[in-house]
Amino acid sequence: MISFESDYNNGCHEAILKRLMDTNDERTTGYGLDDFCNAARDKVRAACEMPDADVFFLVGGTQTNATVIDSLLRGYQGVLTADTGHINVHESGAIEFGGHKVLALPSHDGRMDANELRSWLEAFYADLAYEHMVFPGMVYITFPTETGTIYSRTELEAIRDVCHQYELPLFIDGARLGYGLMAEGCEIDLPQLARLCDVFYLGGTKCGALCGEAVVFSGMKAPAHFFTTVKQHGALLAKGRLLGVQFDTLMEGGLYFKIARHAVEQAIRLRDAFVAKGYKMYSDSPTNQQFVILPHDVIKRLERDFVFEQWFPVGSDAMNCRFVTSWATRPEDVTALINAL
Amino acid sequence: MISFESDYNNGCHEAILKRLMDTNDERTTGYGLDDFCNAARDKVRAACEMPDADVFFLVGGTQTNATVIDSLLRGYQGVLTADTGHINVHESGAIEFGGHKVLALPSHDGRMDANELRSWLEAFYADLAYEHMVFPGMVYITFPTETGTIYSRTELEAIRDVCHQYELPLFIDGARLGYGLMAEGCEIDLPQLARLCDVFYLGGTKCGALCGEAVVFSGMKAPAHFFTTVKQHGALLAKGRLLGVQFDTLMEGGLYFKIARHAVEQAIRLRDAFVAKGYKMYSDSPTNQQFVILPHDVIKRLERDFVFEQWFPVGSDAMNCRFVTSWATRPEDVTALINAL
Amino acid sequence: MISFESDYNNGCHEAILKRLMDTNDERTTGYGLDDFCNAARDKVRAACEMPDADVFFLVGGTQTNATVIDSLLRGYQGVLTADTGHINVHESGAIEFGGHKVLALPSHDGRMDANELRSWLEAFYADLAYEHMVFPGMVYITFPTETGTIYSRTELEAIRDVCHQYELPLFIDGARLGYGLMAEGCEIDLPQLARLCDVFYLGGTKCGALCGEAVVFSGMKAPAHFFTTVKQHGALLAKGRLLGVQFDTLMEGGLYFKIARHAVEQAIRLRDAFVAKGYKMYSDSPTNQQFVILPHDVIKRLERDFVFEQWFPVGSDAMNCRFVTSWATRPEDVTALINAL
Amino acid sequence: MISFESDYNNGCHEAILKRLMDTNDERTTGYGLDDFCNAARDKVRAACEMPDADVFFLVGGTQTNATVIDSLLRGYQGVLTADTGHINVHESGAIEFGGHKVLALPSHDGRMDANELRSWLEAFYADLAYEHMVFPGMVYITFPTETGTIYSRTELEAIRDVCHQYELPLFIDGARLGYGLMAEGCEIDLPQLARLCDVFYLGGTKCGALCGEAVVFSGMKAPAHFFTTVKQHGALLAKGRLLGVQFDTLMEGGLYFKIARHAVEQAIRLRDAFVAKGYKMYSDSPTNQQFVILPHDVIKRLERDFVFEQWFPVGSDAMNCRFVTSWATRPEDVTALINAL
Repeated sequence: MISFESDYNNGCHEAILKRLMDTNDERTTGYGLDDFCNAARDKVRAACEMPDADVFFLVGGTQTNATVIDSLLRGYQGVLTADTGHINVHESGAIEFGGHKVLALPSHDGRMDANELRSWLEAFYADLAYEHMVFPGMVYITFPTETGTIYSRTELEAIRDVCHQYELPLFIDGARLGYGLMAEGCEIDLPQLARLCDVFYLGGTKCGALCGEAVVFSGMKAPAHFFTTVKQHGALLAKGRLLGVQFDTLMEGGLYFKIARHAVEQAIRLRDAFVAKGYKMYSDSPTNQQFVILPHDVIKRLERDFVFEQWFPVGSDAMNCRFVTSWATRPEDVTALINAL
Repeated sequence: MISFESDYNNGCHEAILKRLMDTNDERTTGYGLDDFCNAARDKVRAACEMPDADVFFLVGGTQTNATVIDSLLRGYQGVLTADTGHINVHESGAIEFGGHKVLALPSHDGRMDANELRSWLEAFYADLAYEHMVFPGMVYITFPTETGTIYSRTELEAIRDVCHQYELPLFIDGARLGYGLMAEGCEIDLPQLARLCDVFYLGGTKCGALCGEAVVFSGMKAPAHFFTTVKQHGALLAKGRLLGVQFDTLMEGGLYFKIARHAVEQAIRLRDAFVAKGYKMYSDSPTNQQFVILPHDVIKRLERDFVFEQWFPVGSDAMNCRFVTSWATRPEDVTALINAL
Repeated sequence: MISFESDYNNGCHEAILKRLMDTNDERTTGYGLDDFCNAARDKVRAACEMPDADVFFLVGGTQTNATVIDSLLRGYQGVLTADTGHINVHESGAIEFGGHKVLALPSHDGRMDANELRSWLEAFYADLAYEHMVFPGMVYITFPTETGTIYSRTELEAIRDVCHQYELPLFIDGARLGYGLMAEGCEIDLPQLARLCDVFYLGGTKCGALCGEAVVFSGMKAPAHFFTTVKQHGALLAKGRLLGVQFDTLMEGGLYFKIARHAVEQAIRLRDAFVAKGYKMYSDSPTNQQFVILPHDVIKRLERDFVFEQWFPVGSDAMNCRFVTSWATRPEDVTALINAL
Repeated sequence: MISFESDYNNGCHEAILKRLMDTNDERTTGYGLDDFCNAARDKVRAACEMPDADVFFLVGGTQTNATVIDSLLRGYQGVLTADTGHINVHESGAIEFGGHKVLALPSHDGRMDANELRSWLEAFYADLAYEHMVFPGMVYITFPTETGTIYSRTELEAIRDVCHQYELPLFIDGARLGYGLMAEGCEIDLPQLARLCDVFYLGGTKCGALCGEAVVFSGMKAPAHFFTTVKQHGALLAKGRLLGVQFDTLMEGGLYFKIARHAVEQAIRLRDAFVAKGYKMYSDSPTNQQFVILPHDVIKRLERDFVFEQWFPVGSDAMNCRFVTSWATRPEDVTALINAL
């Protein structure tokens, strides 16, 4: 069986495993205060061209979103997101567990629209009863989005401008950031993305690591005692070195971006094949996740040799199916799938 | 430098690293539903002699405590602990973040006393105003305790009996469970411990793994939808296999206990040397953490070659110092420290 | 100035004031355990034809919603509501403060649709990823709704049937329950409403009292230690008698319903006048709140002598305006407004 | 039966009832934005000699404590209190429900000691692991305390100085503030108390009102959007006028203090009688609550004609009993009790 099930269906990039072995016997202090983490932080800062940025390593995406958002909001504030945003759907209410409302705006192929954001904010403050409502406290977007799409530079700048106007921090969930920045047609690079927002993270779990997300406070200092907030959220790893070693490896020589580019290339091969065969793509994704509408008989045939997710029915005869590539996707696997089509 | 700083100052046991390499290319589904986790769960159940126990793998200790406790308590309930309990001191208020009060009883070398527990409960229900107070909802103890001590079988049975009488689940924090069960003079084994409580965890992070804690619901079924509660708490690892592979390795052939026994043996060598040299032990620890009161000049001398923590001053001339061993502590390192004394 | 601003813009019904005076010197115990509360509870039970119902008196609507909902939900559950529901908009995130997501369904003139509710639940459990989402834990509706409309008996039964099918408690926010039950065309009475749901409240604040809401667990027993949950939510009044005296008075001889009927009658007079003058009603309200679209010049003219709220613009020339009657609305005030039209 | 059960066992002062009647027909806006509240706020400010203080009216003590504390703390912070403090014992975990740990210091007849507070703070910041602990975020004291005692001016200044040194807001729970300021031997008046702390409240519920607490931000501005935080906590009364009218009456001509002084005078008469009869007082209370140790036979005799609370046994023959006076305690009732002794 060849799996296109997800980008976390494998172990990790071999360079990471090798590095874990090489460093295994070194003794370090815990909680991310070790030299591996320090080196990794420096490499993240260098990649962002932000030598003074506050960088923290957390373990997983949901906990990173919950921790960052809770650290930035006051009790009476909520977080604005496209309604398809991960925090609004697939995190089991982790934001609300922290006491904050998720304020959902319409989603356009996973994207928030800057004009709708501005209109929402105008309407909020125009409402006579706004003091009885949850205040907007920050804006959350994903890059790439849940459906694999990305924002154009203009779209991001427009959202940033609204955030500035209303003094709202902009947080970019980068669980799959590598695939976004390496996407076909992506108009920004990491230093530019860092400057477009106030805080974001470089996702490791889905981009070659065993686990780990690197939070970068790029447009602001980290909130006071963020370390303690991380601990309170259960997101502080005792053997922080596990995260440090991984990110030090991923950021070394641009490995993070190389493996993301590889995954995107294979995904685009796949997409082109789907389109060439006449299948309709569910979303226009230039990243490592491809959503395609396949008839049941094709699904049945492909399932014999390939693993992929069926998201939901489209009409009575077809399903929206997801095919995901990663650093570990071999070109021959994609070729096999294309041939099977 | 030779480090006795902690039991999480190294990487992981080499068998785990080897297994991670061997399995790295296998594709699995995520979130702990994979075959590695399934195999690890079976081995944990077998080790507990509880073929039907619900077993879950979480990442770290604070998040495990917060998740298990929040899943068992209703909103009006709190958790009883010795005042030195990890949840009451060193978890940055993670339990309160979940809305629950930590109800602290006196600590006796880290231990809760069953009679004091019963007295507290009697006094609670005898108080005319108890409906205005936080209800006791469960009991939390650590094995071994914060100061390295363990409970005798009689002590544990006495606590269990009080819990039964008041219908309170008993939760054992086993972040260092291996060192407790392998402690000098320990009167219980894993199947017995499992039967003495309702839920506990086998700590991996401090007992040879890179990360990971195995929660076992041994005296009760897991609360409904515990998986979702884990996710909500940011404690669900996407690449759950990382935990499955580790626990599958640790439980294979009793490795978990072997490496714990090794650490305890080295700690006891150290303790005997301290005592032989006339130093006073701060607590009577039969486990891998040794607390000894050392004069400043001795500390200064040892610090040249050894890493260890100074916890707090004892009088004006001495400090309570902690020396910790682990699976990775080499006998020659202990010999070096003994010689340096 | 004659005020139609709200149904809480006055003091309280004179019978309540008189009763407060008559009982002022009597000494009672606190926290709702007094004889006034006991008598009021009995009258509420009698009015519901439910001699065994658990009845509690809380102070205000938001706190009642937050307390009841938090007492019924487990941590991984949220509450389903029409998106216009008070808990979703005008309670400053009180439900999320308690850790629970508000799950919003489309609103139809303030009403939830039973078929949409069923479809939402079917889709939830059909979603492969539902264990990563907030579980539906209960259903919340308002009677009457935010826009003054009511449910038909058939609509309520349909919602109840879906709730039964999915074992979800049904909670009716009755902040204005009197006006709903006395509405033009209302098809149910209090005993029937009590049997259609699991818990509801008889709103006092907006129906003649100074403050107070009577929570009735009609289809279930109160959750264990609900008294303590009320206290924890800051909703337990020390001088509980203030609530007991008020509800004892309101339930005496059906006063609660008489004054609600009076308010509805005056509101209907107003509505009929608006319609006769050719103004368009924003919603088809048979209760004490009338929403009408008035041109700016008319608003300007009316504002000289009358107080009312302008909710939001309709086109560029008009506003949706709210006129509210209460027990204290004098027929001559309505006549004055009608004449002014 | 003559009741000394509590200071909330009656209705309210007759001047309040009269004022409620006189104003009952006036129409006002809701939520504390009305003229009664405005007038009351001005009178509170005048009494504090602080014309610019932010003043808010909430309904009850627990909700006031929870709301103020939650508004001042960040997520990683807790509140310091004497372990007997109301928030630590008798509020059902309302502070923890808001996510914050209650950090308990020893109590000395209900009082926190400034030196112990300073030592606690020194020890906290000296602890190598303090970033893993809950940060102190504010200090909470009660005036008078749970056992009826008060602080001297010197004691308050010492606590304030520690708070300044560590930049911690000082919050005084004044649920019974009137009785404290009018206590025998009290060394401060209201303007002085206001200047000694950052925020406090004038309790209404236990000092003559039906309900209501007046929060005064005296040493700081109110936190941003405190109104919304109040609403979120379910503490915003729709008919805010109920609180405005009451405090406007209580602050008129110093009525609040007059009735408190009356209560204290009667309590002192009682205390002197107890002492004269040779009974031992449990605490040295100069306020309206007297705690006296009475033998069972005396209790049995008194219970025939008097209502009072028995708090807990003292030895096997006696109980600590509480006798409470209020504005409504008639001198002849005290005389009757004295005669019965």
